[in-house]
Amino acid sequence: MISECLAVNEQGHLTVSGVDTVALADQYKTPLYVMDEETIRLNLRNLKKAIDESCPSGGLVAFASKACSFKEMYRIVHDEQCGTDVVSCGEMMTALSAGMPADKIFYHGNNKTEEDLELALEKNIGHIVVDNPDELEMLSKLAGEKGKEVRVLLRITPGIDAHTHSFIKTGQIDSKFGFTLETGEDLKGAKQAISLPNIILEGLHCHIGSQIFDEEPMKHAAEVMITFMSQIQKETGYVIPVLNLGGGFGVAYTEDDHPKKHYEYMHLIGEKVKEISETLQFPVPFVVVEPGRSIVGSAGITLYTVGHVKTIPGVRTYVSVNGGMTDNPRYILYQADYTALIANKANEPKTETVTIAGHCCESGDLLQENTPLQKCEHGDILAVLTTGAYNYSMASNYNRFPKPPVVMVKDGTSRVVVKRESFEDLMKNDV
Amino acid sequence: MISECLAVNEQGHLTVSGVDTVALADQYKTPLYVMDEETIRLNLRNLKKAIDESCPSGGLVAFASKACSFKEMYRIVHDEQCGTDVVSCGEMMTALSAGMPADKIFYHGNNKTEEDLELALEKNIGHIVVDNPDELEMLSKLAGEKGKEVRVLLRITPGIDAHTHSFIKTGQIDSKFGFTLETGEDLKGAKQAISLPNIILEGLHCHIGSQIFDEEPMKHAAEVMITFMSQIQKETGYVIPVLNLGGGFGVAYTEDDHPKKHYEYMHLIGEKVKEISETLQFPVPFVVVEPGRSIVGSAGITLYTVGHVKTIPGVRTYVSVNGGMTDNPRYILYQADYTALIANKANEPKTETVTIAGHCCESGDLLQENTPLQKCEHGDILAVLTTGAYNYSMASNYNRFPKPPVVMVKDGTSRVVVKRESFEDLMKNDV
Repeated sequence: MISECLAVNEQGHLTVSGVDTVALADQYKTPLYVMDEETIRLNLRNLKKAIDESCPSGGLVAFASKACSFKEMYRIVHDEQCGTDVVSCGEMMTALSAGMPADKIFYHGNNKTEEDLELALEKNIGHIVVDNPDELEMLSKLAGEKGKEVRVLLRITPGIDAHTHSFIKTGQIDSKFGFTLETGEDLKGAKQAISLPNIILEGLHCHIGSQIFDEEPMKHAAEVMITFMSQIQKETGYVIPVLNLGGGFGVAYTEDDHPKKHYEYMHLIGEKVKEISETLQFPVPFVVVEPGRSIVGSAGITLYTVGHVKTIPGVRTYVSVNGGMTDNPRYILYQADYTALIANKANEPKTETVTIAGHCCESGDLLQENTPLQKCEHGDILAVLTTGAYNYSMASNYNRFPKPPVVMVKDGTSRVVVKRESFEDLMKNDV
Repeated sequence: MISECLAVNEQGHLTVSGVDTVALADQYKTPLYVMDEETIRLNLRNLKKAIDESCPSGGLVAFASKACSFKEMYRIVHDEQCGTDVVSCGEMMTALSAGMPADKIFYHGNNKTEEDLELALEKNIGHIVVDNPDELEMLSKLAGEKGKEVRVLLRITPGIDAHTHSFIKTGQIDSKFGFTLETGEDLKGAKQAISLPNIILEGLHCHIGSQIFDEEPMKHAAEVMITFMSQIQKETGYVIPVLNLGGGFGVAYTEDDHPKKHYEYMHLIGEKVKEISETLQFPVPFVVVEPGRSIVGSAGITLYTVGHVKTIPGVRTYVSVNGGMTDNPRYILYQADYTALIANKANEPKTETVTIAGHCCESGDLLQENTPLQKCEHGDILAVLTTGAYNYSMASNYNRFPKPPVVMVKDGTSRVVVKRESFEDLMKNDV
């Protein structure tokens, strides 16, 4: 099994942390998101442990909640002594209402509005990750109006584009995000942040990509960033104390994916940060990382009920389920790979090759094409694995399908952490 | 202007049906969906008129509400003496709660569940468009249990794949939808429907594609379908009275798009249906069409506020706005073309070439790449045109951004028809 929380029980049913998924489907109905709390906690703990051990100036895991945002997630993250990264006022307000302390929130975004920044100031959000010079000026002005000082990190685009285990250094940076290196905007931005009133330049931030499987790209990013911090120190005397390396840690969607384990990965990053700092005679920074997918991805699965099975001879077999692009848009968006299996036949071999179709009125509404699967029929429970990240958070109500609930599994029991949407919910804002 | 409801007023502002969009942005805030009621009504009326004139056995316009579903839409559609096509119980319940009569509802879907069909039976939905043999059997059984008879149409995949003004005839049909022609499943399905208890085979349905700009593909589909109806008559003696030709009428997203007008298009279809029927000596069927995009697409625009404008020398200029893939996922999904302009500078020439970026924390969150635009700055109002279809209906809460409201414009006034989501709405189902 590609996730450690998954197994097969005596009835041949898929289990999540020992809980029978077929029983979950029966109890809560399908489609259903299931998440394993212990997996989430372990992922956070392993990262935190590696930071504590390898970063002499300390550090923080800030969960990138755009991967999976609802109140209970923030409670679990907070309980594990981690912070969170939010990318909108909606995530910010959810985090706060779940008890996440404002000073553990990093607020991101390439286009925060004046209203957004005002709300962040009003809520005393601990760290604003400023994307561009406009935002910096606006924030300084607004903080002044409120008589507040605000801690900021600058988002730098360091010229590294990473994906899986490769990365490229690019001189030409084409991104909507951040202060651009090539135009010297980054150094100018740092100087501007140091001099602007009401702004405390606390750190630098970068994010180099996603689904990164080994440590090389992030080690390289750390080198570029600390070199830049050292340059700022030389030019201005100002020592930036925080280095936020963003996220991008990968997860296994299929058996071909082999991401490095959190603990080992983070240890290597922490050691690299220390090594570069010492080489450059720069004070070792406090290290923030913002993993999202790797914390929750493997903790989640989605359960569907198989409906019509349509075999077109010589073409393919469509297995239709009662969900689709509305609860998992990643296939239609990115043709993302997933592993699927029949939860009530989990001990049977995958003898078929099928295309899993969603129930939306759209030809492209597929969950996976030409994927191996057990022989299945109407009423079987289909599980799609590794759906903990960017599934619930990206869900839509296209075709007016209600969003499925999220059930959290822990210690052999389960509980609803996000309730299923009702028809009334769908119409609640219709006049 | 690509939509007739759009113009520019004396202040150089874009207007929708005479209403100043800059004033709308100020009054309702951005992002904001704006729809022109008269355009919707005219589109429905022109289609209906053409049907009334060209179809001797009558016909019905059934609005394909997946393009744009909320209560007020169904009220307008009903008021114009049209019916609706729904693709889920969510759309069905919204239509019913808005006063759409059940007998004017066509219920579609490739994977209706037993619960879905039970609800449809309970609500006495007038027309179930049955997708496959399983569904037919299930429906017959459930209707029997409730002591009801149910009118059904069979979804046939007629081996025509149309897009814009071209189409292909394909012997090999690769679709999750419908009774397949090549396996003889369609004839078998028709015979099954005729013989099954509690089922009244009322019609056949097909849907051959979308964004179709001229009448040729649908004329060809009509020919295939009526030939099949005639074949069924010859083999069984049963005359199927209704032909539902689905939707697919195109709209103009850019100045390069020139779809035929509704009235002319529908007249040509109606005449073709009559001609084929006469040739085959088959009773002219009652004709149903299910336009979605073409009814509402050109009636809608989306208004955003411009935030940061980032020019990367030699690369490109990003214009960031306070919306994006959350309110219009069609660019990230399909790289769909749209026409954009600065609403408060609508009389100025488009001298720039820019990439319009959304506010989501995702590199792919763009609304249009390398598109002509007026020179713009922070605070300008950006309008994206032809967003009435598949924008609000496909919107998500990714990044926990609330969905924008929908404002309907009519006779120089405006009213909210869907309220803006609040932060509380976003958390309403979080435990």
